[in-house]
Amino acid sequence: MTVVVPYPTLLATVTGVFADRGVPPDRARVAAAALCHGDLTGVTSHGVVNLARLYLPLLDSGRCDPAADMAVTTDLGACVHADARRSLGLWSAAQAVDLAAARAARHGIGLVSLRGATHIGCAGFHAARAVEHGMVGLVASNCGGQRIAPPPGGREPLLGTNPLALACPAGDRHPFVLDMSTTVVPTGRVRAAAREGREVPEGWLADDSGAPVTDPSAFDRGEARLLWLGGRPETGAYKGFGLGLLVEVLSALVPGAALGPVGGGADDDIGVVALVIAPERLRSGFGGDAGRLFEAVLASAPADPRAPVVYPGWWEGERARWRRAHGVPLPEELYEQLRAVAPALRAAG
Amino acid sequence: MTVVVPYPTLLATVTGVFADRGVPPDRARVAAAALCHGDLTGVTSHGVVNLARLYLPLLDSGRCDPAADMAVTTDLGACVHADARRSLGLWSAAQAVDLAAARAARHGIGLVSLRGATHIGCAGFHAARAVEHGMVGLVASNCGGQRIAPPPGGREPLLGTNPLALACPAGDRHPFVLDMSTTVVPTGRVRAAAREGREVPEGWLADDSGAPVTDPSAFDRGEARLLWLGGRPETGAYKGFGLGLLVEVLSALVPGAALGPVGGGADDDIGVVALVIAPERLRSGFGGDAGRLFEAVLASAPADPRAPVVYPGWWEGERARWRRAHGVPLPEELYEQLRAVAPALRAAG
Repeated sequence: MTVVVPYPTLLATVTGVFADRGVPPDRARVAAAALCHGDLTGVTSHGVVNLARLYLPLLDSGRCDPAADMAVTTDLGACVHADARRSLGLWSAAQAVDLAAARAARHGIGLVSLRGATHIGCAGFHAARAVEHGMVGLVASNCGGQRIAPPPGGREPLLGTNPLALACPAGDRHPFVLDMSTTVVPTGRVRAAAREGREVPEGWLADDSGAPVTDPSAFDRGEARLLWLGGRPETGAYKGFGLGLLVEVLSALVPGAALGPVGGGADDDIGVVALVIAPERLRSGFGGDAGRLFEAVLASAPADPRAPVVYPGWWEGERARWRRAHGVPLPEELYEQLRAVAPALRAAG
Repeated sequence: MTVVVPYPTLLATVTGVFADRGVPPDRARVAAAALCHGDLTGVTSHGVVNLARLYLPLLDSGRCDPAADMAVTTDLGACVHADARRSLGLWSAAQAVDLAAARAARHGIGLVSLRGATHIGCAGFHAARAVEHGMVGLVASNCGGQRIAPPPGGREPLLGTNPLALACPAGDRHPFVLDMSTTVVPTGRVRAAAREGREVPEGWLADDSGAPVTDPSAFDRGEARLLWLGGRPETGAYKGFGLGLLVEVLSALVPGAALGPVGGGADDDIGVVALVIAPERLRSGFGGDAGRLFEAVLASAPADPRAPVVYPGWWEGERARWRRAHGVPLPEELYEQLRAVAPALRAAG
């Protein structure tokens, strides 16, 4: 059973919830858009399901400071180092991209290196803000001190799921938005399968001997570990783990945020990198070439004529367009959960 | 049968071969170091095996111009756009990293966006040049117009194997060097298996129906396609393909190099991105934190006590240290191939 909520209603509701907790209204609206982006695009593991599960407990416990300002600690022009000071990551990551885009407009490239952040939601939402300026945006974040997946050949969790996103204009098509955990899947997809009583495909989880596990509830029982992109060592597990470390380096080691392998602990003091490139400052013709590149991907011959080839971000763009017009479907349980924190919420019709 | 060649001999020999073809001596030495890096670290698919197979034909056919200078077309300080003008990619990529590092020393970040390049060899060799300055280096390159792997759900090759490398200091340990194709493996490893008559693991190749293929010779017969990192769609093939597109965007779309999906063709007009970050310009303490991060990875509990956990670049660093001291083992056939182009080459002892 799903309940359909008009997108403006959902956005206003979540904005109100954040504002009620002391988040300044303009920031509350950005944070709400970041959170609702998950439901709008179908990345439901990072949508409003996380409001009651993740963000309100962060605010209510004081681990997140709703009204804190980001403090710039070093400013070299193209490159800024800042402390997010426990402000809402859903907002600070967007702020970091906007600042990086402003610097890229002047210097061709802009880097904002952020420590002290809290959970940023969908990295792709933030990266895609660069596309509004005709620019390329890269956003990555570690999980603070939180350890989730062990290295290949390791016994103990060492790093988080360390998301990485890149967004690029694609002419008049939906922008290219790659938004990925560096593990095979993020933990949210394992837990969603556990809640729904579904098995997960071979290749997501393994036991200590490396044998595949398809029961998702084994993960939270500590009987299965999440695999890195690439799966087994002979099919590229070291690359997925290496990408997890790449994110740890760029997003957390560079700014001096908490590091999963050093100390460990909760997902506090998260590091974020926002890197924006302004290609039109470097050469003319970028916009047209970008359109031709992604048009060519969409025109690539499919194996099954009923399933056209698409690029990351295309389906999410289609879903978002439809749901902006026709409403966002929420599972009834989630709708009720949302009404519990925002009693004024009403479904469509 | 292998022949052991002292590293300085191998380096001088390859330097001489490039210099004889008209590459200026200082550039020939950099290019030789880039090429020998493969044999030094054990990434033999990108070592001197490619001298006779790839680089000499490029030079002899005129597709590569041995003495061309790199031409800077836009200079914004932190950000440089340049045309490599068909110079040897083994040299121009190193040059791009050195220039990016010089800009990062001033601005905190340096980006060199290169079009018109030829094959750069091991991307990790170039990225690691940033580590000599205590900086973080990222290098990626597309394959020009060359199409190798089809998109998930696609029938025709669309993109190259699009390598991506990141290097970071690791205190007094071997630097972290992730150097990966965005496909499960590069084509060189498939062809090496075919030459040696070995089967490849399930997960490298698939036929048109998606069924695993373990006969590597099926690849060059056109009966098997190379898979993206992640393998099957349900285990992350879209992420590997997305990373291939990420490299295409950063390395080729941004500078305006040839694009695999648009036009297609040979691996001419390759695009390269060299991005260097100087963390000590942003904050103090980076070097110590980097040492602690990678020390913690090495100290992580192994599943098998005889197989310690390591990070990408560690084994390559060990091998390089040993081979610098004791010589580089080359298969006899490769040694003879090298003697055919450099008759003065002599093995150790």
